[in-house]
Amino acid sequence: MLVLGLDPGTAITGYGLIRYENGRLEVVASGTLETSKREAEVARLNSLFNAAEALLAEHRPDAIAVEHLFFGRNVNTMLNVSRASGVLLLAAARASIPVTEYTPMQVKMAVVGYGVAEKQQVQFMVTRILGLDAPPKPDDVADALALAICHAHSSKLGALDPSGIGHRKRGT
Amino acid sequence: MLVLGLDPGTAITGYGLIRYENGRLEVVASGTLETSKREAEVARLNSLFNAAEALLAEHRPDAIAVEHLFFGRNVNTMLNVSRASGVLLLAAARASIPVTEYTPMQVKMAVVGYGVAEKQQVQFMVTRILGLDAPPKPDDVADALALAICHAHSSKLGALDPSGIGHRKRGT
Repeated sequence: MLVLGLDPGTAITGYGLIRYENGRLEVVASGTLETSKREAEVARLNSLFNAAEALLAEHRPDAIAVEHLFFGRNVNTMLNVSRASGVLLLAAARASIPVTEYTPMQVKMAVVGYGVAEKQQVQFMVTRILGLDAPPKPDDVADALALAICHAHSSKLGALDPSGIGHRKRGT
Repeated sequence: MLVLGLDPGTAITGYGLIRYENGRLEVVASGTLETSKREAEVARLNSLFNAAEALLAEHRPDAIAVEHLFFGRNVNTMLNVSRASGVLLLAAARASIPVTEYTPMQVKMAVVGYGVAEKQQVQFMVTRILGLDAPPKPDDVADALALAICHAHSSKLGALDPSGIGHRKRGT
């Protein structure tokens, strides 16, 4: 099962694609979709959409996980973030790939086991769970990978492993 | 010149297409793009996008006017509204139609001549300016038409008429 985590933004969208197989998680691809600040907002949405369609066509993930956006903090950036998420969800719909949204608390619970974990704790656990040499950079990529891990744990396949950390137990 | 005003929402997007010619404004088409609440949010964005693409292909407007979204009031609906606007802006970009955003105050100034006008005053003036028999319903359509009027007045064509109400003076 291929799970794509997406952390939306018009300037930078982080993505992390992981394979979940035989109780193991591994990174297949990760990076950022970036648009130029020289472009107008509308053109950036178009660039983002094209990049997302290309990414989905290349990897054909089975599922997509995105953050459930909350308003309240950082209201100024929320418009662009939510427009970007609209465009990414559209790309998913057009590719017939199911999307699941997770709250930041759900992601932290799945990755750290603690719903109000600090960003650094999440990055540390993403690095460990995926067997990476160093924390993924930029933060957008780490967040996207955390979302993908969260979905793998929450999916039916994950539910077969009651420990919820089978990818580590079996993998090492 | 054909100007399309759009009032975005995933449930209901109001649209109003007006022709601005020889100082006159007239409604060419207006209505709503609606999606079913039985559909999931992601599927609704896809339906909205398809409906918007069909609308643009049918009428080929020269310009699109949308409301510049502010956060603060009605935070709960803002996520869906801004995602819907992202999808509509994408449809515009893919059709190479320029988009201009206007604040509610700019729209009120253009339509009523008073930046803090009440909704009813805007509807009254939209009805008068466009020579309609009754106020456009639902509100989403009236808002979309107000945006289109605002753009016509603000565009270079509108600027040729220093009174800013040439469509009425010359038309009657």
